Amino acid sequence: MLLSGGLDSATVLALAQAEGFQICALSFDYKQRHKLELDAARRLAARAGVEAHRVLTVDLRQFGGSALTSSLAVPKDRAPQAMGRDIPITYVPARNTVFLSCALAWAETLGCFDIFIGVNALDYSGYPDCRPEYLAAFERMANLATRASVQGGGVFKIHAPLIAKRKSEIIQLGLALGVDYGLTFSCYDPQAGLSCGRCDACRLRREAFTACGLTDPLAYADGDRL
Amino acid sequence: MLLSGGLDSATVLALAQAEGFQICALSFDYKQRHKLELDAARRLAARAGVEAHRVLTVDLRQFGGSALTSSLAVPKDRAPQAMGRDIPITYVPARNTVFLSCALAWAETLGCFDIFIGVNALDYSGYPDCRPEYLAAFERMANLATRASVQGGGVFKIHAPLIAKRKSEIIQLGLALGVDYGLTFSCYDPQAGLSCGRCDACRLRREAFTACGLTDPLAYADGDRL
Repeated sequence: MLLSGGLDSATVLALAQAEGFQICALSFDYKQRHKLELDAARRLAARAGVEAHRVLTVDLRQFGGSALTSSLAVPKDRAPQAMGRDIPITYVPARNTVFLSCALAWAETLGCFDIFIGVNALDYSGYPDCRPEYLAAFERMANLATRASVQGGGVFKIHAPLIAKRKSEIIQLGLALGVDYGLTFSCYDPQAGLSCGRCDACRLRREAFTACGLTDPLAYADGDRL
Repeated sequence: MLLSGGLDSATVLALAQAEGFQICALSFDYKQRHKLELDAARRLAARAGVEAHRVLTVDLRQFGGSALTSSLAVPKDRAPQAMGRDIPITYVPARNTVFLSCALAWAETLGCFDIFIGVNALDYSGYPDCRPEYLAAFERMANLATRASVQGGGVFKIHAPLIAKRKSEIIQLGLALGVDYGLTFSCYDPQAGLSCGRCDACRLRREAFTACGLTDPLAYADGDRL
């Protein structure tokens, strides 16, 4: 499974474990602005007792083109209802395709056919590579790409169990599964080790906790403002 | 374009230039056994005067599963007609998918929609990710994956101009375009900086030069034996 260290992938980790899967988790140092998420991924993997956790380096900053992999500014203080109209500058070109491709490579060497990813298509900031039609096309491609499928007869399945869920539903699901969201990290633009509270990722997350009648366990650089 | 430094990608480079494309070339340090091919890629890119050449590190040795990315032995002295019956141990799990995904990421940031790859499905050693149906599925996925296609209306095209050519036809095409095959490197298992002459890649290459009535300009560790 792809494990970013964020709220969504932490929930998918708990969900896949609850379904009985043994977990091999893959994270990426893609020279992202919010590299702090990798510490969260390590905490989550350790807490869950996964079979293996790898952090693969793929320097997407060499290509840039995103506020997460260049000096472009991360948008702040956007109302959640204003997100998703256009694909924002935090979109990283082809990132999920690169990540899923590397997961496919590892899965094939492991003899695994189930690949989990924590995307969701509702509160999703408008990313094209978080949509069901994209994931279906990736899955179809994967089954034509590999020895394990073409010669071995296996069938790769891309699992995106959160794809049709709202962020608040994801939190409720995760809490029911015992996820400690204090271990996660979602912010695109950390300030001195704290979540900024103002980027799209922080705002979606905080509003979702509020919608659940809960307080996000994370500390925010801007205090408790919403 | 993907530029490995081998005979095929050198030919694709010349072909794309002859068709008027400006070239941005992408090579991979994937901790391959035959990392020497990267020197060839650099020579070819410099000779061609490309717009840009990047070497991206993606450590596929972390996953292994191939003779090219682990200590598994590279098969030697196989007759070309015996290749392609089974997918050999030199197959690197999902390698072309990882490579094309990274090329897609760079292409999107560049505003390019034409991605060239030097695969061929005839003298191809049986790799699943060198087949037309695979490339078509990748192209379809790519056009669902990116802002440039989904919002920008662009259409990514995966060009594989060598896919239906024999190695000997590729050499004749390249020579007509002025390719210096002395700059290329194909061997999977170099010995003291020389091509081994005995792996599938060396054998296919040497037999193809012979079929053209030519001598391969490369030096081989086993001398002139075929």
